[in-house]
Amino acid sequence: MAVPIILSVALIAGIISIVLAIIFRSLVLKEDPGNERMQEVAGYIEEGAKTYLKVQYKVLGIFVGVLFLVMLFLLPNMTNPGTLNWEQALAYLIGCVGSMLAGWLGMYVGVKANTRAAQGCTKGTKAGFDVAFFGGAVMGLAVVGVALIGVSIIYWIFESPLVVLGFSFGASSIALFMKCGGGIFTKTADVGADLVGKAEYNLPEDDPRNPATIADNVGDNVGDIAGMGSDLFDSYVASIVAAMMLAAAFGVIGTIKAPFANVTLTAAGTSVFIVTPVVYCGVGLIASLIGIYVIKKKGSEEPGKALNTGTYLATLIYFAFSALITIALSIGLGSEEVGLLWRIWGTSAIGLGSGIVLGFTSDYFTREDKKPTKNIAHAAKEGHAVVILSGFSYGLLSVAPPAIGVILAMTISFWLAGVFGVAMAAVGMLAIVGTIVTNDAYGPIVDNARAIAEQGELGDEVIRTADKLDSAGNTAKAITKGFAIGAANLTVMALMFSFAEEAGITVIDLLSVNVLIGAFIGVVIPAFFSALLILAVQRNAAKMVDEIRRQFEENPKILTGEEPADFHKTIDIATKGSLRELIIPSILSITVPIGVGIIFGVASLGAFLAGAILSGFVFAVFMSNAGGAWDNAKKWIEDGNLGGKGTEVHKASITGDTVGDPFKDTAGPSINTLLVVMSLTASIFMGLLLMFNDGAGLLGNLLTIF
Amino acid sequence: MAVPIILSVALIAGIISIVLAIIFRSLVLKEDPGNERMQEVAGYIEEGAKTYLKVQYKVLGIFVGVLFLVMLFLLPNMTNPGTLNWEQALAYLIGCVGSMLAGWLGMYVGVKANTRAAQGCTKGTKAGFDVAFFGGAVMGLAVVGVALIGVSIIYWIFESPLVVLGFSFGASSIALFMKCGGGIFTKTADVGADLVGKAEYNLPEDDPRNPATIADNVGDNVGDIAGMGSDLFDSYVASIVAAMMLAAAFGVIGTIKAPFANVTLTAAGTSVFIVTPVVYCGVGLIASLIGIYVIKKKGSEEPGKALNTGTYLATLIYFAFSALITIALSIGLGSEEVGLLWRIWGTSAIGLGSGIVLGFTSDYFTREDKKPTKNIAHAAKEGHAVVILSGFSYGLLSVAPPAIGVILAMTISFWLAGVFGVAMAAVGMLAIVGTIVTNDAYGPIVDNARAIAEQGELGDEVIRTADKLDSAGNTAKAITKGFAIGAANLTVMALMFSFAEEAGITVIDLLSVNVLIGAFIGVVIPAFFSALLILAVQRNAAKMVDEIRRQFEENPKILTGEEPADFHKTIDIATKGSLRELIIPSILSITVPIGVGIIFGVASLGAFLAGAILSGFVFAVFMSNAGGAWDNAKKWIEDGNLGGKGTEVHKASITGDTVGDPFKDTAGPSINTLLVVMSLTASIFMGLLLMFNDGAGLLGNLLTIF
Repeated sequence: MAVPIILSVALIAGIISIVLAIIFRSLVLKEDPGNERMQEVAGYIEEGAKTYLKVQYKVLGIFVGVLFLVMLFLLPNMTNPGTLNWEQALAYLIGCVGSMLAGWLGMYVGVKANTRAAQGCTKGTKAGFDVAFFGGAVMGLAVVGVALIGVSIIYWIFESPLVVLGFSFGASSIALFMKCGGGIFTKTADVGADLVGKAEYNLPEDDPRNPATIADNVGDNVGDIAGMGSDLFDSYVASIVAAMMLAAAFGVIGTIKAPFANVTLTAAGTSVFIVTPVVYCGVGLIASLIGIYVIKKKGSEEPGKALNTGTYLATLIYFAFSALITIALSIGLGSEEVGLLWRIWGTSAIGLGSGIVLGFTSDYFTREDKKPTKNIAHAAKEGHAVVILSGFSYGLLSVAPPAIGVILAMTISFWLAGVFGVAMAAVGMLAIVGTIVTNDAYGPIVDNARAIAEQGELGDEVIRTADKLDSAGNTAKAITKGFAIGAANLTVMALMFSFAEEAGITVIDLLSVNVLIGAFIGVVIPAFFSALLILAVQRNAAKMVDEIRRQFEENPKILTGEEPADFHKTIDIATKGSLRELIIPSILSITVPIGVGIIFGVASLGAFLAGAILSGFVFAVFMSNAGGAWDNAKKWIEDGNLGGKGTEVHKASITGDTVGDPFKDTAGPSINTLLVVMSLTASIFMGLLLMFNDGAGLLGNLLTIF
Repeated sequence: MAVPIILSVALIAGIISIVLAIIFRSLVLKEDPGNERMQEVAGYIEEGAKTYLKVQYKVLGIFVGVLFLVMLFLLPNMTNPGTLNWEQALAYLIGCVGSMLAGWLGMYVGVKANTRAAQGCTKGTKAGFDVAFFGGAVMGLAVVGVALIGVSIIYWIFESPLVVLGFSFGASSIALFMKCGGGIFTKTADVGADLVGKAEYNLPEDDPRNPATIADNVGDNVGDIAGMGSDLFDSYVASIVAAMMLAAAFGVIGTIKAPFANVTLTAAGTSVFIVTPVVYCGVGLIASLIGIYVIKKKGSEEPGKALNTGTYLATLIYFAFSALITIALSIGLGSEEVGLLWRIWGTSAIGLGSGIVLGFTSDYFTREDKKPTKNIAHAAKEGHAVVILSGFSYGLLSVAPPAIGVILAMTISFWLAGVFGVAMAAVGMLAIVGTIVTNDAYGPIVDNARAIAEQGELGDEVIRTADKLDSAGNTAKAITKGFAIGAANLTVMALMFSFAEEAGITVIDLLSVNVLIGAFIGVVIPAFFSALLILAVQRNAAKMVDEIRRQFEENPKILTGEEPADFHKTIDIATKGSLRELIIPSILSITVPIGVGIIFGVASLGAFLAGAILSGFVFAVFMSNAGGAWDNAKKWIEDGNLGGKGTEVHKASITGDTVGDPFKDTAGPSINTLLVVMSLTASIFMGLLLMFNDGAGLLGNLLTIF
């Protein structure tokens, strides 16, 4: 079938998705925002979130501007050699704006939906669920819609995956800021609020007297909604572009090299394979919409079950619809290419299937009714140190099962369709990301709703309803994390392969010392990066602690509730701190890959990426799961087990939870984005790197056996 | 110069070293063992240590026997094809026995020296220092002496580095048991003693009423003396054999491939290069002996300074003597080969120099007067969780400087003499291991002496003297750790290269999916292994805690000091637990590399080793330094800073220290041994691996682009 027609599937799905997001937004806005106090609190949260985003976007403006100029004037144009690199630079700008837009839209609705969901809870589970879910769906649909529209239009106009790469780089550089900055913000507030409010003054969670309460709620929005949305936007686009680049490269070479069968591509076949990832994502979006519809239908009764049912259903529908579209795609192709197309369909199905499996293993290692989390809770009986050792160990052990999952997915998809198959497995894993993001964004909205219900004094029953909705989001959240890490891993693997194709290197030989050094630096980077982020949270939280103590000491009326705490000051600390602290990590993520490429050469840079991907996987899974398990071990104890709240066991479990906070919400999830940014940087700056000894780098020739 | 003559340098140095060890031993034994109570305590420690070693050696007997039979009957003879593999299997047995012997000798003196050093302290610093230092020197000299005698005699007889490889594999398999088992034992006792004795019953350190006190002291001997000795024995032999194997391989190929200059080897040149690592180590041993002599001379005044001066002096003497021996080695060689020999001398000097630098960076990150440790101590003001986050982050950050150091050493030495240069850098780094082990083994002896002085009621002044001696050992210990990790890293790199030469693979291509999978599994393994060891300590310590509580509850007279605690029971728990818990890790370390090789092929196994080496480096440095920094942050607070002992800040710092215990003394240092064992396993089982599709493995061909 002609490429423009089939590509329109993605474009139309994207447009439908944006239209639905706008409709859902208005459905949310027309709900009752609750009593005056609730509106006041929600107003503070909204104001804080917007202030943060405004400051963040200002800093981003400089960063984006500089990179735009670098791309435009310093990088050679690889699509139309000899001309200014304007297409890629422009696509980069569009990617940045698209990512910011999706983040803004999602968060704008999030901060409106929270108070309305709280008010909904006064009417019952259904009303509360609907508002929160619609709020989450706006984020989910906006992310996927903007991404698909952007990718398909840019490819339609320029017909070059390298230009789409610019779009992806834009999305990633924004995601890095949003994810790291949001992660630091949210944990600065959370840890600060807990350390003084809960531990020193025995204030309950979400108490309005705690000056950091509003900042904590703002953090949920900027970290968990905007940050997570831009993270998945980033992986989604990157997985598509990696597959497109590989398909294009094979088109140039003429052969898809796969062990199962070598297939020589025709020009028509190549253009079909290039758009296949986009089209599959379009189909996945339609499957996601049906999933969302079903969750909305069923969600009012059993919210937790509904979220999962929606995910499974979207998966099955994706399998069926993508098979149908494969039939359409195969029209006019030769039998060898049709066979390859079906194998590619298989890889995308395997990718999605293993995404689900990865979600479940991460769920197992963090669920309070499973052995690891229970053992961690029991370890709390021996004190603070033992609960840390236990969570640390289980976190490290939890790396093995998803690693095996990714290795299996990689093995089978490579066997079916070569490195293009690996890229398509990543695309498949992210195909139903609309549903995934929706389910995930639902979480912080109900979390916020609970806080507003508390502060709006809506009573215990309403809070219990909000709690019920909240706990439904937890499994969904665990599954999302498994998905996000697995998908990012396969995506960056695919990016590494496409980088190698682009660089024209056919071998990355670990026996060459320059390559080994690249791998070495790559393996160290995620550890270094994680340390910077955790130290940032710790430093910032210490400032937050000082500020909260200062407010309580200087104005005792805050504690009696006679005068309001100064929320602005705490939000200001979290905002400024998070932006200051992400300067070094973000500069490193761009400069280190370029530096490795210039000094040790492109083959070394390929190994750098491989090392970072593998070590990043270990750290991302370890930190996410250890953090989740500590969190749930604490909750399990708070449910009355092992003596319950207020005991020494409980205190030890809080230590675990606090250590886990920046693990699971700052460092762990930021690693994905880091990996994507570094991989894209390598590809984007290829033209520059090839200027140094034709890509061998300044020292590369000295370190290779010749 | 003729090879046998020059090789005799190493043999004679080894024999001198053993003779000196025996003399030092008798010097220690003729000292006054102190009062009756001291002798009683020392007797318990000696008995416990011997019991542990006996049980350990029994289990080892089975393990060694099985592996011996496997090597003899299942593995093809690569030296004399077609015959039974008896030479390598025999060398393996000798390596096992040698390692056990060195460990036994060192520990036997250690448990005699402790009470004599305590008694010496009653006469003053000098007397105490002398005994402890002689005790440590016995271990240091025994390790190096046995290793050098073993390697040179085996090579003299069989003239095949592959047979020496068997000796190395024996040393490693024992080291794995000694290091992991000892590490679990010592921390089981330490953590158990602290959690109940110190935290619950407020007993001071080394209080005789605490049933785990003796087990804790036994742990210092089995973990820090015997374990550490066998660990460095292992790295030392492995670095020599890796260099020998590479020299022999290049002899077969005819060319040393180095960027600086390609050199074609003559038969005479090859035989000189093969023995060069052994000869350099012989020279290094002589340098070590002079270093030891100087420390002995100066040590009585300023112990800390003396230990370091000895190390520097040994380094300088090594530079000079190895240059002299290089002149001797070059007799009869052509000018090209002489040039290469001098470059190789350069790589060994660079290796040793960077070992010193690595030691210093690890010292910086763990010293209480430096910023990282101070910041960690200040973090303790914010509570248990923040001190953990801080130490965790600084531990991760501390990976970067030594990584840069190793990368620089690797770059320059490769540039000078190819992969053989990298191997020789490792040899150089370990050349003065005699001094290093001596300084390091001194530590646990004075640590034990302090405990015996406490229990023998020798009074505060004697304890202060013992404390002074103890703190002198700390810097030495930090430097040793840096050395040990850096040397192990370069050694396993060299082993990987020699593995590749042996397997006949010229490329390990990360763009092949089977290779990428190998690297993936390799990167995950050190994390998994660390988790198993930490969980082992945690599980075992919980049993220890239960036992101590039981004794205090069932017999209240223990706490009043009227009746002695039951030491045997606690030693029994630590012994049995540590042996049970190391079964899985030790089986994994042998079976995983074989499994990867059989399934994915030898190239994949090469990448597995590379992945494990790099990720292992990250985890080893991180855990050692985080643990050391937490320990010293606690000590700094105990010195009266930030409120001193008994405050909440102090309690938080104890949490850090307890978390750090298994990090720095169990998991961190065991990773080195794991890496060496896995690398040697890959080489030893080469004949088996090549049986599966000629080394491509069962699946390898399916996952390679062809």
